[in-house]
Amino acid sequence: MRVSGGKAKNLARSVQFEGDRLVLIDQRALPFDFKLVECKSVEQVAAAIRNMTVRGAPAIGVAAAYGFVLGLRGALGGKKEMDARAQKVYKLLLEARPTAVNLRNAIARVMSACTHARSANEAGLAALEVAQRIDEENAVACMHIGMNGAELAHKDARILTICNTGPLACVEYGTAFAVIAGAHRLGKLKMAYACETRPRAQGSLTSWEMLQAGIPHRVIVDGAAGDLLRRRMVDFVVVGADRIACNGDFANKIGTYQLAVLAHENAIPFYVAAPMSTFDRELKNGAGIEVEERNEKEVLEFRGVRAYPQGARALNRAFDVTPGRYVRGFITEAGVIRK
Amino acid sequence: MRVSGGKAKNLARSVQFEGDRLVLIDQRALPFDFKLVECKSVEQVAAAIRNMTVRGAPAIGVAAAYGFVLGLRGALGGKKEMDARAQKVYKLLLEARPTAVNLRNAIARVMSACTHARSANEAGLAALEVAQRIDEENAVACMHIGMNGAELAHKDARILTICNTGPLACVEYGTAFAVIAGAHRLGKLKMAYACETRPRAQGSLTSWEMLQAGIPHRVIVDGAAGDLLRRRMVDFVVVGADRIACNGDFANKIGTYQLAVLAHENAIPFYVAAPMSTFDRELKNGAGIEVEERNEKEVLEFRGVRAYPQGARALNRAFDVTPGRYVRGFITEAGVIRK
Repeated sequence: MRVSGGKAKNLARSVQFEGDRLVLIDQRALPFDFKLVECKSVEQVAAAIRNMTVRGAPAIGVAAAYGFVLGLRGALGGKKEMDARAQKVYKLLLEARPTAVNLRNAIARVMSACTHARSANEAGLAALEVAQRIDEENAVACMHIGMNGAELAHKDARILTICNTGPLACVEYGTAFAVIAGAHRLGKLKMAYACETRPRAQGSLTSWEMLQAGIPHRVIVDGAAGDLLRRRMVDFVVVGADRIACNGDFANKIGTYQLAVLAHENAIPFYVAAPMSTFDRELKNGAGIEVEERNEKEVLEFRGVRAYPQGARALNRAFDVTPGRYVRGFITEAGVIRK
Repeated sequence: MRVSGGKAKNLARSVQFEGDRLVLIDQRALPFDFKLVECKSVEQVAAAIRNMTVRGAPAIGVAAAYGFVLGLRGALGGKKEMDARAQKVYKLLLEARPTAVNLRNAIARVMSACTHARSANEAGLAALEVAQRIDEENAVACMHIGMNGAELAHKDARILTICNTGPLACVEYGTAFAVIAGAHRLGKLKMAYACETRPRAQGSLTSWEMLQAGIPHRVIVDGAAGDLLRRRMVDFVVVGADRIACNGDFANKIGTYQLAVLAHENAIPFYVAAPMSTFDRELKNGAGIEVEERNEKEVLEFRGVRAYPQGARALNRAFDVTPGRYVRGFITEAGVIRK
């Protein structure tokens, strides 16, 4: 993981392929415990995606690509058996988490490489090559997102974000986080505001990454964002995305939609930072995005501590869909795409 | 505390005066422990208001009135000494929490009764009489708020609220809670949605009260409210208030402003339920409302459990101010006041 380039790459990337295993930073244990988890099978990778050991749309895309490689290992037999196995592996990974398109795009690319292979061995090599390419492209894309986004900040910028979009979520650099870190490196950042992002409080990961990178920031509860915008304590909002439709509608962490509306109501620019791989060209608009519902215990507990009386029930939609009309621009590796 | 009239009044009111002491339900311990706290001095009452043993604008108004009575006890000497003591007690209570006007209105009424007394004894009796009147008026007002608000609900109503506005917060019946409970009693409520209301998660108190009253409900994180409104899963929003200015601007728990904007954006009615004592006739608009900033530990912890890395900082404004233009109507004991 690179936060301002401080740490040794192999030690601290959130997703690291080691030839026969995928090593993940256990993001559930952070910010208090730094633990690595080793996955030696595609089943273990799929479980790590499901239970959020690894999280963040770009990171799960990269993890799934390597998971695919592990899933092909040990395959014997001809092309037909290999294709059947690839199908099975694809399905297992696709179902791990439904909302982020990066995952689907990544495994579709690996799958396609396998389809063109003539043997199990060739398929395995092709899959690995594609997975490594996805990993590298993602890092380069995030680096450029940070540079392109940082140009949007003026002096003494105060930037609000939600969830965690840093190196943990993206393997390197980050998306919205990279924009903030870029502004900081250029000496233009006055203050970052990090929404807590209940139920899983990914804001604590963002705070942890910002502390490491020396980025001045304040955590706020999710209910405080509107007040901050109304009092004009924010110059722009930047968020990540899990899937972007052709018309600009996009899915992101629950709470994003309301930030967009509140920014709009207060005439404060709202940007989405995401690699081009987040665009879903098959999707006309946001109505077709499947939103994951997670266990209600995530709401009724906080870091494992029960917060609600016995018998209480909760809703737990993990994402929401924001209409594209609220977005000032999409910050991508190719530049800022405006309406 | 009356939740659907089920419990013995003396056992379960959140604020109960017992002649020589004020007995409070310790709201910090709920929903897991039911504890009573006894205050025998005005200093103890002021501390209980500050540390949120007792909370909710109407309840702290009633508690402060009785606290004033305790503060006058044992006073000797003539009118001058009594007036000086009353001044001191007034100031102590006023500073306990700055935002809710009910507190100021309540102690101003008790103070005024003292001012007209000719002896310490007469002042004590007058103060007690006024405190009891405030207590009773508040209960009657909340009862009527519930009845008036319930009429706004149509069949199968789905109502969203924030914070805790039930009997705990209001001694009896509640404000926004009474509207929901009233709709439930009339058989018109399909579902209530309770915002968690970080940092102190008063939504857990609301869930506890709704469970006792048999009100069907779901807890949501504060970031999920906008999504719920956008998907039209809510028919109206009703919230309490801590202070209402002449133009309809009002202060309430942090997160209220954004609910109002999101309801407006989705053309869903937004109501404020509050007794007439919440109107601050000295206040032209919301700009003059002092908003309490509380300890940032409330944000960085959750029920005492640290959630953020060492070195993390937070903002913790406890309230926000919502412009009156977002309010469809104020549900009071005198009826629904519309623009």
